[in-house]
Amino acid sequence: MRKIIDLNPMFHPKSIAIIGASGGKGKIGAIPLQNLKSCGYEGDVYPVNPNYNEINGYKCYHNIESLPKNIDLAIVSVGAQNVLPSLEKLAEREIKSAVVFSSGFSEAGEEGKKLQQKLTHFSRRFKIPVCGPNSIGLFNLSNGAMATFAKLKFTQRDPVGFITQSGAFGTFTYELAKEMGLGYEYFVSTGNEAAIDFFDYVDFFAKQENLKVIGGYIEGARDLEKMESAIESAQENNKPLVMMKVGNSKKGAEAAASHTSSLAGNQSVYESFFRQKNVVQVSDEEELLDTLTIFTKAKASRERGGLGIVTLSGGSGIIMADKCEEYGVKLAKFMPETTSKLTELLPSFASVKNPVDVTAQAFHELDKFLASLNVLLEDKNVETVIFYMQIGHHLAPQLVPGLIEISKQTNKTLVVCWTGASKETKDALISGGVCWLPTPSRAIKAVKNFMQYQKNRETLVQHEVNSCEPQQKEVGPIQGVVTEFLGKQMISKYGISIPKGKLAKSAVEAVQVAEEIGYPVVLKVISNDFTHKSDVGGVIINLKSKKEVNESYHEIIKKCYDSNPSAKIDGILVEKMSERGTEVFIGCFQDPLFGPCIMFGLGGIYVEILKDVAVRKAPLTRKDAIEMIKSIQGYKILEGIRGQKPSDIEALVSTLVHVSDFCWDHRNDLKELDINPLIVYEEGKGVLALDTLIIGKALEPSNV
Amino acid sequence: MRKIIDLNPMFHPKSIAIIGASGGKGKIGAIPLQNLKSCGYEGDVYPVNPNYNEINGYKCYHNIESLPKNIDLAIVSVGAQNVLPSLEKLAEREIKSAVVFSSGFSEAGEEGKKLQQKLTHFSRRFKIPVCGPNSIGLFNLSNGAMATFAKLKFTQRDPVGFITQSGAFGTFTYELAKEMGLGYEYFVSTGNEAAIDFFDYVDFFAKQENLKVIGGYIEGARDLEKMESAIESAQENNKPLVMMKVGNSKKGAEAAASHTSSLAGNQSVYESFFRQKNVVQVSDEEELLDTLTIFTKAKASRERGGLGIVTLSGGSGIIMADKCEEYGVKLAKFMPETTSKLTELLPSFASVKNPVDVTAQAFHELDKFLASLNVLLEDKNVETVIFYMQIGHHLAPQLVPGLIEISKQTNKTLVVCWTGASKETKDALISGGVCWLPTPSRAIKAVKNFMQYQKNRETLVQHEVNSCEPQQKEVGPIQGVVTEFLGKQMISKYGISIPKGKLAKSAVEAVQVAEEIGYPVVLKVISNDFTHKSDVGGVIINLKSKKEVNESYHEIIKKCYDSNPSAKIDGILVEKMSERGTEVFIGCFQDPLFGPCIMFGLGGIYVEILKDVAVRKAPLTRKDAIEMIKSIQGYKILEGIRGQKPSDIEALVSTLVHVSDFCWDHRNDLKELDINPLIVYEEGKGVLALDTLIIGKALEPSNV
Repeated sequence: MRKIIDLNPMFHPKSIAIIGASGGKGKIGAIPLQNLKSCGYEGDVYPVNPNYNEINGYKCYHNIESLPKNIDLAIVSVGAQNVLPSLEKLAEREIKSAVVFSSGFSEAGEEGKKLQQKLTHFSRRFKIPVCGPNSIGLFNLSNGAMATFAKLKFTQRDPVGFITQSGAFGTFTYELAKEMGLGYEYFVSTGNEAAIDFFDYVDFFAKQENLKVIGGYIEGARDLEKMESAIESAQENNKPLVMMKVGNSKKGAEAAASHTSSLAGNQSVYESFFRQKNVVQVSDEEELLDTLTIFTKAKASRERGGLGIVTLSGGSGIIMADKCEEYGVKLAKFMPETTSKLTELLPSFASVKNPVDVTAQAFHELDKFLASLNVLLEDKNVETVIFYMQIGHHLAPQLVPGLIEISKQTNKTLVVCWTGASKETKDALISGGVCWLPTPSRAIKAVKNFMQYQKNRETLVQHEVNSCEPQQKEVGPIQGVVTEFLGKQMISKYGISIPKGKLAKSAVEAVQVAEEIGYPVVLKVISNDFTHKSDVGGVIINLKSKKEVNESYHEIIKKCYDSNPSAKIDGILVEKMSERGTEVFIGCFQDPLFGPCIMFGLGGIYVEILKDVAVRKAPLTRKDAIEMIKSIQGYKILEGIRGQKPSDIEALVSTLVHVSDFCWDHRNDLKELDINPLIVYEEGKGVLALDTLIIGKALEPSNV
Repeated sequence: MRKIIDLNPMFHPKSIAIIGASGGKGKIGAIPLQNLKSCGYEGDVYPVNPNYNEINGYKCYHNIESLPKNIDLAIVSVGAQNVLPSLEKLAEREIKSAVVFSSGFSEAGEEGKKLQQKLTHFSRRFKIPVCGPNSIGLFNLSNGAMATFAKLKFTQRDPVGFITQSGAFGTFTYELAKEMGLGYEYFVSTGNEAAIDFFDYVDFFAKQENLKVIGGYIEGARDLEKMESAIESAQENNKPLVMMKVGNSKKGAEAAASHTSSLAGNQSVYESFFRQKNVVQVSDEEELLDTLTIFTKAKASRERGGLGIVTLSGGSGIIMADKCEEYGVKLAKFMPETTSKLTELLPSFASVKNPVDVTAQAFHELDKFLASLNVLLEDKNVETVIFYMQIGHHLAPQLVPGLIEISKQTNKTLVVCWTGASKETKDALISGGVCWLPTPSRAIKAVKNFMQYQKNRETLVQHEVNSCEPQQKEVGPIQGVVTEFLGKQMISKYGISIPKGKLAKSAVEAVQVAEEIGYPVVLKVISNDFTHKSDVGGVIINLKSKKEVNESYHEIIKKCYDSNPSAKIDGILVEKMSERGTEVFIGCFQDPLFGPCIMFGLGGIYVEILKDVAVRKAPLTRKDAIEMIKSIQGYKILEGIRGQKPSDIEALVSTLVHVSDFCWDHRNDLKELDINPLIVYEEGKGVLALDTLIIGKALEPSNV
């Protein structure tokens, strides 16, 4: 395990040195000084530059050697070649943390990569946390510690911590967020992550009491264990993690590779992993900001129910109802009192069903409009409420204070979607603590993310930890392609059902086995020289007598030698012919980040075409296995449709867990595994692995 | 066919009367006068109100009778009960058109519905086009004809015509659009559509030379023929139609029903219909406005190719590449010259692949940033270009004029996505004619809509018109449930292949038929008393001899009478047993708006679960049929995967068209049709309809 590095000096520095500080207008080394001043940083500031005696009113030091000891944070803004020498001098001054703006590291060819390795090494050796290189910096607006050369007006601050693998994304979303009345309090551009990566910051932000939510832009993670523990830390501290994961497309992944040296993991594994860990995934910039906004303003109510909507426009009600269905947001079913109160309150042509349409009449009866909002907030079936209003600037003086008051009083989360609100109205609502979102469609998307997080949080039990010790099932190491016979032996040791059968070395033996296990039987050639057995006539099914077995044995042997005279045949597998059932498959592949991942789906060509599969990293708990099975569209087939009996889901769950155990134990030598088909019988009758393909990792050159 | 009503007096009025005009602040009858004044309407204005002699400087008339004759447009803003009497008086003054603000019509119960029928009747009788009732009005900013009580600042105008079935949606999107530097020039809130409906306005806007694009919010259409001809008129005049269709969800449809009396047609039919007609469908408010923006600024270049992207942020490049893949936007493959020019121009650490990442270096070399944009615009593989920039307000004085100049010079469509641009920068770009969009994700979505429209426009051939005369195939009228035997006879007359077979009335006859058509055969009971034949043992397959046929005949008869002693059995269908092939199904249902619609998909339980079906209204052309077949995910199965031979798509296409012809001819008496399964054999070997279910419409009570 890595040593945990303390990031407090980085984000809560009492003193900041700026190596390469500048007084030149627009220079990278000049901006942090301006930012520190404009944001009211009260700690000590030590610019370092041999050419100045003073910059911006700060005394300037001519070299690092003349700095006091124990400075909390050093900003390093010098040419790439000078970064390491500067850091080493800083280490002598017992600096506690550093952020490197300089580029010219791993993003800039082989030389740069070497330089970056030295940086990594430096950080480890001196136990000094270094942010970057190639970072636009970090900041903490709560104390004005602005260690960034981002040239923004930092006018907005909310309890949001933001972490980004693209500096540019960080700055432009800060600007976009401002337009929505949202600002990041803590911010870090992770740069090339030579020493500290994305999830180190997640872990640190998770522990900051003044933050309510963590946002992130991520191209790829570097360390699975660290990611897992940081996400868990965020969950424990009830800090929702709202992430935009990019580099999902093939093109996007290419662009990612040429942009940073991040590993672009397999997206569907990320997706299932994030879903499992209750990380909120967003798909674009505005969904990110809207979702951060709602979490920033959310109330802590534990009541669960549906969404209630009050609108003065039927059109917006329809749009919101459409979007609720599209995103799976449950519209609350009102209590009878609610309906009768609304009926009393509203004109006869209003709709008192959810979404409640008070109609344009609301413009003339604002008190009733607000009263109906209160009625919804009091309904115990209603968990969250959207209040929809548009334009009507002249009504703001009456409506805004009412909304602020209601928003303060309620213990539920209230979203005000006031479309086309004037800047003054918007600002007044937001500064009054109201959660404002700009359009009906965006409001529903953000509410979906919020409500889903709350619900998942309650059902999220601590991930049951599988024993990670090898289970010593006496399965030897896996090398190259394992024959079906040996593969089945291996998985059966893990409790996976395989058909009755034995390997026969002669026709006489084959008949003996058949008599022993009972007819009908199947014969299959077992040989590493015939991966596709059926193609060479190496499989004969449905044999019902001694005679048929005897003849088929000879037929298979003949055909195989005809096809490859020098083939090495281990024998013929004689297996009990299995009955029909529902065909599924279970597979395993190695992901560079997530390690062995288990894939599950229904069998047949539909899987190849419709890609209706579930993927999850090993090891799987029973809960994981159940979720995977239920997540595929074809689950209904397993449940039994058209009068068919339900399948043995119980046995399927166990088998998935057993496969996962096998793959986890063999995570170092297994490359791929395929159980296809696995037949699932009706409830209580189990499963049967009809065919198995296991491939070991290529041996490392040094081991050959 | 309806008489075409001239909407010119409504949108280009030389004179406007306002019945119920008011001088009271905020009154509905007061706002049009204010709007007319503020928007510089130069025609004659005639307020009518017995209590004023003058309003806002306009002479006020005490009654309708005293108005001059031949006024172009009357705004009617009086109580619902007074609307008809006012209109009748206006008709006497030979008014040419009217818009009714008043509510209290079909949205307000039975009384209101009757009132609305009278309004419809009035419009037809006097041939006076009436907009509304329950409309917030209409306007034309090019001549200041502001017949609306929307209380907005009409500061922005672009060549966009906007039609909305929700007045509130219209006003709030006008406000949202303004923030994006976009304004509607023509606008109409259709209200309850008593006389003129959504597509009348589409047809009219399609013919306005000063419009470039038509936007719309629609809950449902009322008249299929009118919709078709209006959409075709828009296509002919190259006016893209950008539509937000709502009321798609079950909940949404409910809300729609309680909101207006619109018919909420079947959404997937709308979708396929719109796609077929090259109507651009958008899914939220911002996509609507972004798409209108790009069409407003689009260039007419006919060069086709991919999208080129220049960005100064790797992160944005990744996001855009991701979104291109998600939405199916083709990224251009650059010509070799482009790559070499870019390599020369840009620093070594820039990416010269598409998306081109000039890196933050661009901030210091704006000329090169702009030059690389020109390089892309000159590439003949590049159809459209996105230029991505962020923040950098201080660079605007240099960059903005450059972008305006390039945008003017190029004959291609250039989108500038300048995220976090200051208001001044944005305004300068937009007033310079540049297409500005706010975020990378939104830019790609709008570009997708634009490029898809252009591409479809070229491939859109005039819809081949099927002969709509009944084809007199001597198939009688369809009543109730048609037996499989008769159903197959009917469809075979339309050229659809059915298995060889005959109806036998005795075992002897059954054997004769079997001998005639050859073994193996299938026997099926034919009786209206057994819809589910298999359940009662009414089907026996794979009979290979006289003996088997004879025995099976008796067995079926016995089992059927055992199950229902009073059953009326028509006979036993003896059919040639068919060979295996790919199972598909073809169905037909009646949609209240679209009439008979054809549905197609692969057979099996996957269809029920995965809903992988194509739907299109009848009649189908061959092109329609091909598109339907290709649009399902399972199409790959028909193409032949895993080494299987391709299916007889040709025969399948013909069969779909034949089914469509049958259903179209029987559009007045057919309720449902199901051919399931239809077996598709390999190329050149045709198809076979194995089972058929045809149900006629219930007879109208008056006909019973």
